[in-house]
Amino acid sequence: MEKYICVKDLENAALDLLPKATRDYYKSGATEEQTLAENSTAFRRLRIRPKCLVNVERTDLQTRALGNYVSMPVGISPSAMQRMAHPDGELANVKAAEAHGTIYILSTIATSSIEEVAQAAPKATKWFQLYIYNDREVTKSLVARAEKAGFKALVLTVDTPLFGIRRADIRNQFTLPPHLKLANFDGHLSTKIQSTKGGSGLNNYVSGLFDKSLTWDAIKWLKSITSMPIIVKGILRPDDAVKAIEAGCSGILVSNHGARQLDGVPATIEVLPEIVEAVKKYNTEVYLDGGVTTGTDVYKALALGARMVFVGRPALWGLSVGGQAGVQKMLDIFRTELEYTLQIAGTPSISDITRDMVCHESVYCKL
Amino acid sequence: MEKYICVKDLENAALDLLPKATRDYYKSGATEEQTLAENSTAFRRLRIRPKCLVNVERTDLQTRALGNYVSMPVGISPSAMQRMAHPDGELANVKAAEAHGTIYILSTIATSSIEEVAQAAPKATKWFQLYIYNDREVTKSLVARAEKAGFKALVLTVDTPLFGIRRADIRNQFTLPPHLKLANFDGHLSTKIQSTKGGSGLNNYVSGLFDKSLTWDAIKWLKSITSMPIIVKGILRPDDAVKAIEAGCSGILVSNHGARQLDGVPATIEVLPEIVEAVKKYNTEVYLDGGVTTGTDVYKALALGARMVFVGRPALWGLSVGGQAGVQKMLDIFRTELEYTLQIAGTPSISDITRDMVCHESVYCKL
Amino acid sequence: MEKYICVKDLENAALDLLPKATRDYYKSGATEEQTLAENSTAFRRLRIRPKCLVNVERTDLQTRALGNYVSMPVGISPSAMQRMAHPDGELANVKAAEAHGTIYILSTIATSSIEEVAQAAPKATKWFQLYIYNDREVTKSLVARAEKAGFKALVLTVDTPLFGIRRADIRNQFTLPPHLKLANFDGHLSTKIQSTKGGSGLNNYVSGLFDKSLTWDAIKWLKSITSMPIIVKGILRPDDAVKAIEAGCSGILVSNHGARQLDGVPATIEVLPEIVEAVKKYNTEVYLDGGVTTGTDVYKALALGARMVFVGRPALWGLSVGGQAGVQKMLDIFRTELEYTLQIAGTPSISDITRDMVCHESVYCKL
Amino acid sequence: MEKYICVKDLENAALDLLPKATRDYYKSGATEEQTLAENSTAFRRLRIRPKCLVNVERTDLQTRALGNYVSMPVGISPSAMQRMAHPDGELANVKAAEAHGTIYILSTIATSSIEEVAQAAPKATKWFQLYIYNDREVTKSLVARAEKAGFKALVLTVDTPLFGIRRADIRNQFTLPPHLKLANFDGHLSTKIQSTKGGSGLNNYVSGLFDKSLTWDAIKWLKSITSMPIIVKGILRPDDAVKAIEAGCSGILVSNHGARQLDGVPATIEVLPEIVEAVKKYNTEVYLDGGVTTGTDVYKALALGARMVFVGRPALWGLSVGGQAGVQKMLDIFRTELEYTLQIAGTPSISDITRDMVCHESVYCKL
Repeated sequence: MEKYICVKDLENAALDLLPKATRDYYKSGATEEQTLAENSTAFRRLRIRPKCLVNVERTDLQTRALGNYVSMPVGISPSAMQRMAHPDGELANVKAAEAHGTIYILSTIATSSIEEVAQAAPKATKWFQLYIYNDREVTKSLVARAEKAGFKALVLTVDTPLFGIRRADIRNQFTLPPHLKLANFDGHLSTKIQSTKGGSGLNNYVSGLFDKSLTWDAIKWLKSITSMPIIVKGILRPDDAVKAIEAGCSGILVSNHGARQLDGVPATIEVLPEIVEAVKKYNTEVYLDGGVTTGTDVYKALALGARMVFVGRPALWGLSVGGQAGVQKMLDIFRTELEYTLQIAGTPSISDITRDMVCHESVYCKL
Repeated sequence: MEKYICVKDLENAALDLLPKATRDYYKSGATEEQTLAENSTAFRRLRIRPKCLVNVERTDLQTRALGNYVSMPVGISPSAMQRMAHPDGELANVKAAEAHGTIYILSTIATSSIEEVAQAAPKATKWFQLYIYNDREVTKSLVARAEKAGFKALVLTVDTPLFGIRRADIRNQFTLPPHLKLANFDGHLSTKIQSTKGGSGLNNYVSGLFDKSLTWDAIKWLKSITSMPIIVKGILRPDDAVKAIEAGCSGILVSNHGARQLDGVPATIEVLPEIVEAVKKYNTEVYLDGGVTTGTDVYKALALGARMVFVGRPALWGLSVGGQAGVQKMLDIFRTELEYTLQIAGTPSISDITRDMVCHESVYCKL
Repeated sequence: MEKYICVKDLENAALDLLPKATRDYYKSGATEEQTLAENSTAFRRLRIRPKCLVNVERTDLQTRALGNYVSMPVGISPSAMQRMAHPDGELANVKAAEAHGTIYILSTIATSSIEEVAQAAPKATKWFQLYIYNDREVTKSLVARAEKAGFKALVLTVDTPLFGIRRADIRNQFTLPPHLKLANFDGHLSTKIQSTKGGSGLNNYVSGLFDKSLTWDAIKWLKSITSMPIIVKGILRPDDAVKAIEAGCSGILVSNHGARQLDGVPATIEVLPEIVEAVKKYNTEVYLDGGVTTGTDVYKALALGARMVFVGRPALWGLSVGGQAGVQKMLDIFRTELEYTLQIAGTPSISDITRDMVCHESVYCKL
Repeated sequence: MEKYICVKDLENAALDLLPKATRDYYKSGATEEQTLAENSTAFRRLRIRPKCLVNVERTDLQTRALGNYVSMPVGISPSAMQRMAHPDGELANVKAAEAHGTIYILSTIATSSIEEVAQAAPKATKWFQLYIYNDREVTKSLVARAEKAGFKALVLTVDTPLFGIRRADIRNQFTLPPHLKLANFDGHLSTKIQSTKGGSGLNNYVSGLFDKSLTWDAIKWLKSITSMPIIVKGILRPDDAVKAIEAGCSGILVSNHGARQLDGVPATIEVLPEIVEAVKKYNTEVYLDGGVTTGTDVYKALALGARMVFVGRPALWGLSVGGQAGVQKMLDIFRTELEYTLQIAGTPSISDITRDMVCHESVYCKL
């Protein structure tokens, strides 16, 4: 693992290792992939404004998310079917999160079950990402199992009435490799994704299974069947953030689904400030994923008001390269880069990262 | 057709298939082709701001244009001499529009006659694009024939006192292939375009035939010879849009002629908002063509106030690749991409696409 | 000449033909050549906003500059030592201007004399570009000869206390080829430029000869020795434009010396509007050179307030490629492109080109 | 030296000559090197607005910094371990500064001692760059030696609680070549940098040695042990500049440590204006380093309020290429380019360079 010194190194190695269909599935964004590129480049348009001569002898990366302690404000975002990257799949990922004292969000569409994940890393803070199926009994069962298994929050994906158009998956006629299955389901729900009648097997799978008629009432229903706090994932507008809070959600995960749903939506870091502003009076926590690949990206998101960030693809790259060790390496890199940033920026603790530590590059066009 | 999954695929295949002179004729813009590029890239500077948790079980792409029902807000813009792309030319195009329940605009300079087109697709909504010739009897005859053949509107091109400078056509000494003719005309008007005395045969053709002295009085004259509603095509300024309405036009087609007339004019999507604003109080419909190649482009134009959009080159690429089936494939792609966009953006019907669904990227520079 | 259909064609052909030292001398800008690129790209940031349905049957490109009739608002800017490009040098250039009914500005540092130029094209409107030499008698003689030879204006270069750093000339140890001389001078002033003691022979030449102590009093002195109107060439600031007028100048040529003096100065089209604004109340004519290569560039400069534009390098490219015929071809291209622009923009005469015909692209960022 | 006509020439030659580890050490910036690029490109976004017809017969590049006469406003910024570039290292550099009548800033981490440098160039104005070590006796000794050796100011680096992440150094496992040592230290402090236990030997070295607990109280302490004026190097925020002055500092060196500490911080020229504005009322001198490679860069920094600029890498490139002669060549180039700029911009003396001589390119977007 020594030779990997930045997330880009892990990405490059993973892209070399993975079979084409898996590689394409993980790296693709929706249609023309403009937003995919923007998720990263939007961070480059922000500037950190470091303070000097601040005592930084002791740095402190710890924070809390929904009351859960984390050793640093970088967690692992949900991504589907992680055993495609490595035989240990979700289990390697959650163990890495446990080892690093951070949060792992398990996908509904996982190749390891809720119970397997819980057992693999009993001490990790685990959240469960939920898709609501037309079959509400299926959905209820997922929620009940997650709660029973000790998951600490439900992360409801709200941007996915169906999956976006990912051209590579269509060309590859993507299916789940035959030795894997969707481990949270039984019967046809666990294997349907293994065949395709043309196009992306994943899109064929979810079409007709996910509930497209969902509204904000879904939150009410969820609250009636679980006592886990609910985080909504996929918010890109301030008014939706306010609706989420008024519906009873406990957290907002600003996300564009890794730029995989709709091309042309803003980068997540672009919309973060207006969402933070809109929810300020509610004291609700806001998180972000999308395009985070360096410690300075994390720092910028925190300065703009995120409580913590989550990374999806970086975990997959680490997983592909080295299983649990690879994911830990990825988290090591973020930890180190963030630690350096805290010190050189003169903000030794997370709570020192105030809004004025970061500005948009356009500030410097006003000479 | 299965292998074509986006308009770009059709374009690439068509560019491979077509003979050089035709390919160049279709793809070129005026002089340095800056506006040609801008027509597309200007769409990339707009961001869609999706809503989540909206019931999108039923999507509805239907709308009306000048009272004509269309199954989706994407029609086919006029382009000249479509038999150069495929032996079925205009007939394949209009049949595809008929099959898809949308509008086909026939060019004056077509290689199939008004009557042939009407007969090929009697149920299609057909509009007739008009150039006004110096010989007003020729013009009157065109209008009368279109009306008699059941065309539902006149689309008067107002940006073409002469054809723009298209360098490739000059270098190629572009002429209509000898087995084709301008089918709406008799005698020398039908064949003159087949020879050139140097330079572009098309420019030589129209020079001296088109009426360069046209003013807004032309609308009055047209209204005196037809009861078809009149749409003006080629508007790029708000004041001209208002003049058109005051002259009695029923619709405004914001167009820069596929960037083929004057290089350096704005992208059509750039000027759309100010034109929509200027005509708001008149309740006149505004359409757009230019640079539309994806479902999100369509969506952005609708959000900025277009009633529907028209596509020119995409129809030519589809036609080149597969005749009617190719054009239908092109329309399929737009339909699918627009449907996905409606669902993921949380606006299941066309009428749900309000102005706030789209913003300019510069909004995010104001941190 | 048929095969050249745009100025870029002439440029490419010329760059192929010319020997390296000459090619480099003509095409170079100061130091890093940022402004050289900006002179062109700044035009690309402007948009033409065409009007439609304007009677453009008769276009009229004629205008007047300092009372002199010109058949079109494109003249030839001064450039040094034109016989390096073609044996006919300045004589070919002035004859082309005469044939086209436009203005030719002869450089002080010419390889044809004032008298030769006057004799070659007696009917051309000729202006004389002046450098003021330390030796005021030399300067007086130049002015007197120009006036006597029928030149209609003095174009005083005000941005050249010394020549800028042009790296290629230094590397090439640029000198005037031995068969040529500076034809407006006798003795060592005519041949000194043919040798170099290292570095650019041209910079060595002017250093010590040009008067670096010039102030605005120079205008007063010039007015005392000539009755020709005085145009100042090289103005880039509004306050300097006002000073010029108050000193008695009759015209302002906005120029950055083809980006050859100081890198990092603005493109000329960028500063034109503020200069036009500053001198509005004086009714003084403003001209522009720098980066003009197409008819739409000319149009944009006129819309922003230039009375006419001048082109330097395009004349050199035409001259290199075909002597007088090549320069005429270059002027033909501008005439044709400008004529098309007038028609398609709906402004058939030069006086129709009002300020609102052009806007900056940033206008379209304010959605 | 004749063949080097710009700093870029020296850089290219040096990069060819140097062994990989040294080359990488000198040229690298922090992590992704965005700020490294920005330091240069930010200068390109500024425009010089030259005045014409100003008497520039006599140019005067002289100025004073902290009361020290300099023959031009370009000095040499501190950089570590200069003998890696050339056997004469710091001694060649300081002699070149002496020959040019400008300031040399010696690094704490030098491969020549304070006393050697003082002896090599007794007449040069020398400033001493200081890192504060945990061992305050070590620090006191450095300060006392510098003062005794005739150094005129302390330049306290305030942006380096530890060294930034420079990926190339980590990959190269950078160490000081065995024949060199840190000449200002004895014992393990002088040689520890020659070994590495993985990663960058430099980072391992400073980690644990530099005092990370420093606050603004450090200025007070320094003032208690020296009568040299104190300049703080590494300021990027107006509020920190004010703090520095209130703590008793005599000068502000706006610097981002050659973009080597934290990627994503602003270019130094971007923050200069707001810092100059903030300290205006105190009459404190402000300097700048970072990205300065041409005479126009120097000019722009002066126009925006810098008293003088310092160059780091350009001195290393000159040193690598030709020892003292190479550094002098580098200074010659800056002198010549700045002299040309003063003349062509119409500001013959440093004090003529007023704020209005430079503007941001965005000024020209407001048509």
